[in-house]
Amino acid sequence: MQWRFFGSVVLACVGAAAASAQQIALMPMPASAKRADGSLTVTPVHGLSHFTVAFARNGAPGALTADTRLLDAAHRMLVRLDRTCGGDVLRSVNGPASGRATLTIEVAREGEAVQSLDEDESYKLDVTPAGAQLTAATDVGAMHGMETLLQLASHVGGACVLPAITIDDAPRFRWRGFMLDVSRHFEPLPVIKRTLDGMAVAKLNVFHWHLSDDQGFRAESRRFPRLTSVGSGGLFYTQEQMRDIVAYARARGIRVVPEFDMPGHSTSWILAYPEIGSGEDIRALPTTFGIPVAELDPPRESTYKFLDGFIGEMSGIFPDAYFHIGGDETPGTGWMANSRIRAFMQRRGFAGPPELQAYFNQRLLPILERHGKRMIGWDEILNPALPKDIVIQSWRGEESLAAGARQGYEGILSAPYYLDAQKSSAQMFLADPLPADTKLDAGQQTLVLGGEVCMWAEQLDPETVDSRVWPRTLAVAERFWSPQSNRDLPYLYQRLRRASLELEDVGLLHISGPQQLRRNLAGTLHPEALELLASVTEPVSFSDREEEQHTDAYNSLDRLVDAVVADPPSRQAMAGDVDAVAGDVRLPAGGKDSPDTSGDVPEGFPPTRGEAIADLEERFFAWQRNAPALLQLARETPRLNDIEPLAVELGELGAVGAQALTFVDTRTAPPPGWAERADALLTRSAHNTALVRFTFLPSIEKLVLAAEARGR
Amino acid sequence: MQWRFFGSVVLACVGAAAASAQQIALMPMPASAKRADGSLTVTPVHGLSHFTVAFARNGAPGALTADTRLLDAAHRMLVRLDRTCGGDVLRSVNGPASGRATLTIEVAREGEAVQSLDEDESYKLDVTPAGAQLTAATDVGAMHGMETLLQLASHVGGACVLPAITIDDAPRFRWRGFMLDVSRHFEPLPVIKRTLDGMAVAKLNVFHWHLSDDQGFRAESRRFPRLTSVGSGGLFYTQEQMRDIVAYARARGIRVVPEFDMPGHSTSWILAYPEIGSGEDIRALPTTFGIPVAELDPPRESTYKFLDGFIGEMSGIFPDAYFHIGGDETPGTGWMANSRIRAFMQRRGFAGPPELQAYFNQRLLPILERHGKRMIGWDEILNPALPKDIVIQSWRGEESLAAGARQGYEGILSAPYYLDAQKSSAQMFLADPLPADTKLDAGQQTLVLGGEVCMWAEQLDPETVDSRVWPRTLAVAERFWSPQSNRDLPYLYQRLRRASLELEDVGLLHISGPQQLRRNLAGTLHPEALELLASVTEPVSFSDREEEQHTDAYNSLDRLVDAVVADPPSRQAMAGDVDAVAGDVRLPAGGKDSPDTSGDVPEGFPPTRGEAIADLEERFFAWQRNAPALLQLARETPRLNDIEPLAVELGELGAVGAQALTFVDTRTAPPPGWAERADALLTRSAHNTALVRFTFLPSIEKLVLAAEARGR
Repeated sequence: MQWRFFGSVVLACVGAAAASAQQIALMPMPASAKRADGSLTVTPVHGLSHFTVAFARNGAPGALTADTRLLDAAHRMLVRLDRTCGGDVLRSVNGPASGRATLTIEVAREGEAVQSLDEDESYKLDVTPAGAQLTAATDVGAMHGMETLLQLASHVGGACVLPAITIDDAPRFRWRGFMLDVSRHFEPLPVIKRTLDGMAVAKLNVFHWHLSDDQGFRAESRRFPRLTSVGSGGLFYTQEQMRDIVAYARARGIRVVPEFDMPGHSTSWILAYPEIGSGEDIRALPTTFGIPVAELDPPRESTYKFLDGFIGEMSGIFPDAYFHIGGDETPGTGWMANSRIRAFMQRRGFAGPPELQAYFNQRLLPILERHGKRMIGWDEILNPALPKDIVIQSWRGEESLAAGARQGYEGILSAPYYLDAQKSSAQMFLADPLPADTKLDAGQQTLVLGGEVCMWAEQLDPETVDSRVWPRTLAVAERFWSPQSNRDLPYLYQRLRRASLELEDVGLLHISGPQQLRRNLAGTLHPEALELLASVTEPVSFSDREEEQHTDAYNSLDRLVDAVVADPPSRQAMAGDVDAVAGDVRLPAGGKDSPDTSGDVPEGFPPTRGEAIADLEERFFAWQRNAPALLQLARETPRLNDIEPLAVELGELGAVGAQALTFVDTRTAPPPGWAERADALLTRSAHNTALVRFTFLPSIEKLVLAAEARGR
Repeated sequence: MQWRFFGSVVLACVGAAAASAQQIALMPMPASAKRADGSLTVTPVHGLSHFTVAFARNGAPGALTADTRLLDAAHRMLVRLDRTCGGDVLRSVNGPASGRATLTIEVAREGEAVQSLDEDESYKLDVTPAGAQLTAATDVGAMHGMETLLQLASHVGGACVLPAITIDDAPRFRWRGFMLDVSRHFEPLPVIKRTLDGMAVAKLNVFHWHLSDDQGFRAESRRFPRLTSVGSGGLFYTQEQMRDIVAYARARGIRVVPEFDMPGHSTSWILAYPEIGSGEDIRALPTTFGIPVAELDPPRESTYKFLDGFIGEMSGIFPDAYFHIGGDETPGTGWMANSRIRAFMQRRGFAGPPELQAYFNQRLLPILERHGKRMIGWDEILNPALPKDIVIQSWRGEESLAAGARQGYEGILSAPYYLDAQKSSAQMFLADPLPADTKLDAGQQTLVLGGEVCMWAEQLDPETVDSRVWPRTLAVAERFWSPQSNRDLPYLYQRLRRASLELEDVGLLHISGPQQLRRNLAGTLHPEALELLASVTEPVSFSDREEEQHTDAYNSLDRLVDAVVADPPSRQAMAGDVDAVAGDVRLPAGGKDSPDTSGDVPEGFPPTRGEAIADLEERFFAWQRNAPALLQLARETPRLNDIEPLAVELGELGAVGAQALTFVDTRTAPPPGWAERADALLTRSAHNTALVRFTFLPSIEKLVLAAEARGR
């Protein structure tokens, strides 16, 4: 039987002996999967499930190689399987004493010593009632297959059960990255490691480590020790730690591409070594964010000598073929203020800073080549003066990416995947590095290598990073891995809910972290009132927050905005309910605060009309009942003083919602003036308050419109 | 104005400029405190609070010593103060550039290099509007004072505010311990460290580290490497790690007393070195728990040579004056099965194993003395053959402790503080090492050194340890620190709620850990239904669970029982509500399932009758409404199958509760037969199910009795 992957159907694990609510909900979706009858059931013996793993290389059993990466991964898989299957799995990677192993992993070769863009990541997973077979060309493919296997397993009737299935899988894009800025706020080592664990679940394969920026230089250099002794404020990674991260990532099939931003965003370098800067007198690391006023000094030869030494040293730590030179946001303010540099530009006939930056990049290129590296940088490095073997990372958008491809440059897309824009999983998921209607020809299309999710750190710290990154990054990771045609949003959200719990299992704090922050905020007065508010609010976008708060390094990130998450489950749930009640109503395009409604209203798995009405009634009642407690909490808790308008509005919105629901349900007309008042409230509530916004306004608006329609 | 500590009055922080709900809720309660008018307010300058700390030694400013313990502690205090005060504190421990520091810490001396029982832990904290002064004889006292200061601070109207107050504080008992068993289940290093952080908050001063038992030997010995290479199953602490823990503890004013259990509970030693055992053929570490069948070999001289070498080595790692030899549960099964040992006993005229154990301990004594150690052991080591300078740790109860004191032995109480008994904070708090009605004379009373909270690990793992230990341990820690007269239970619970959040701030996972386990258990089906059930259930006692589950090393600790906590807030809250509605009703003594109601029904801060009725109605309604979802969850989730009866009962109890409330509120008589049916339901629901029990049954019983009374 063929498994419908991209429709709205989720298959229950019907082959299992006992009934189970467990559903097959893979994420990312594989390229191809065929469900068969029956299942592989590992029944406990004396209370222990004997789930055994055997290895083979090219058909020869047990031939493990010196590289223990695959063995370690299998161990980790069994530890997690142990939890999924009720904790009674006897972990054995030596195969059974006799007979067939539960799982045989056959891998042709270890994979590249330094993983490249061309690493074979495909795998085939075949589960039959007699056993499971995982076949892959490389360890990397096999590790992806183990992640898939973990998502298939469930605990049914005391046994560990895998549905019979054949999965043939390979990624759509070769570059599936995640970028983390550790300069503007530092992230300690455990954060990096659990981020890599989450990336492995998501089948992402590039960790792009933004290691330097104006606010701090985070990588220890022994040749240039002042980069961290002066330029880091004490927060940096030692060389040993960076090697540790590279090894940790490789063990999970992940490349590490370091970024050292130049010639702009380099205040920390210049504070440490003024002789490579454009002449500004830098006295301290900047505590504010934004576009800096100083750059590295392109005319001076000693700048390149310095960079040659530095890049050589870093190349000994980061073996990846790519070296990210940043290159973004370099208006050349420092250059233009320096008469020597201006004179140089004049001599060379450079019209402005972009030409000087292109010159700088041209000089950088042979240095990188000498150290065996290919250049990657942000949009701004794109210049006809540079050869075609550089890679452009587009933060300006799909158009910019396509423009690069048309000029023959390889590129990766990042613009739609900026997590601090606080967009929904659906919005990011639908953005495609190569949309179905792309105008690029086949050759140009091959130049689009993939994309990267980006997490900038102006408004981020170790306590909020997990909840900003996850689970939304899973949605983008699926975009990079799965077929282009995979665009079913309700099914996406349903799988996200389950995958989010899987992320907890590998150690991410994206759920517990914000909960703890909220407990800390609310104290003992009315914690439940804050929980309710938090469940229906999300952070405003980076730029809205930046504008209002002027975030700097001293701003503590411990307010409501830091304790709520983008696109919380309530948005989808309410939209689904409203759809069941008033599905015929369409919001006018460009209506107020409706950024998230185009295309991502759930259409599958709908609640019945009765269920939806009951659920909405309960929500609206809870909002009204909650209002006095929330108001008291806002008034008496200093860090929550600014949520007072939200407390009032949420109560009022609950009242309006309940009224609208009554009109719709009873098919009675609202009284004169009601719709105008409801509309005014919606407009008022659409303002950002306390750096958060309500997630559900389009749903209320839809109900109000439906009520009005009844009145006509 | 005198601050009433032990009544039901909690003072709001009235001196603050703006109104605030923050209350002074110190835990443990200090020996003496006098509130004064006004407050110390640190107002931000350019968005930064300049909270400065200066140091003095014996009146001379700035005289810090080579030992940086105090400086480090002040740094940690400022990091935490930073969060309390809204995150905008400029951390400075160098004092202000000019003028008076916000806080001056004056300490006479560093404190003992190896902290002893007699370390001076007292401190005085004087907060006036002009500044705060913390005075102590030693660093240890000053560190306790800093913990108190942190509890005073709050964030009011944008400023960091401390109420004006004079606190003169010192502990009631000198030995305030916490014991952790790391043998039956191993606990990794981060768990130990965050436990020590929690102990510092609680002002506990002894970490008793139960490092060996039958199931595993957890301390690396270089002289006897097989103790861990064979006897640990791979899970142990290296010597470097143990030294790290000793230093970490000392930095927080905490002694580390290692325990190596002998001559019983020593299967792991004997597996590693059969030549010191009583002759049983041990082939593997035990995977079940209970009283072992093998002991160390007392007749053989080589046993003492071994122990001399081992204790000498451990003395180089653990500098504390005390060395815990265990000594519990040694029935001598192995001894009596060995003809050579029996012959030895006969020659010596020993009537049975207790005499042989006393002989063993007598031989141990000079070895300990040679290495500068005093002996401490469990009840069983008490024997007239041993001198009076040993310390008895009583796991048998207050009577046993008092009996030791009457014979002239120093002792510490542990029996009432076994966390795995799953008793309420109130029950443990009321148990006193020296009750008000003690029959010991003044001299005997000085022999009672204090007590220890004990966390045994048969049913514990790294994911559950925090929620088993905290916050209940805070209640016992207060018993050890604060005056005997401090017995106000509602006030205890009120302070516990706040202190529990403080523990999160130092890194404990006692709230987020069980939440995450529950999410893992419930998956995406009806997580909210499980939350409701979890909020009104608690684990059964150790022995009930042991009897039912026969816990062994393979049992996974990931069921509902592991995801709920003893004495959850709902118990107190419901008891308080029921008291407001039916306070005149007294449950019959010895009634079913009423272990927690004697004396600990809230009497202060009562809700009004109307509030209580509304709150109870809402609870009872939620239980009924929740029942179908909970039932579905139980049926479709393998690891929750066994909660099905709870799902049914909770719905029924909600119905009966709501009915009883109606009868009481409307003063109408219940129909004939109603009371009998309600009683039958209560009896049925009082059975342990799925290793948990309902927390609220006495409250329902009280309501039912009140309803019956209306009928008469």
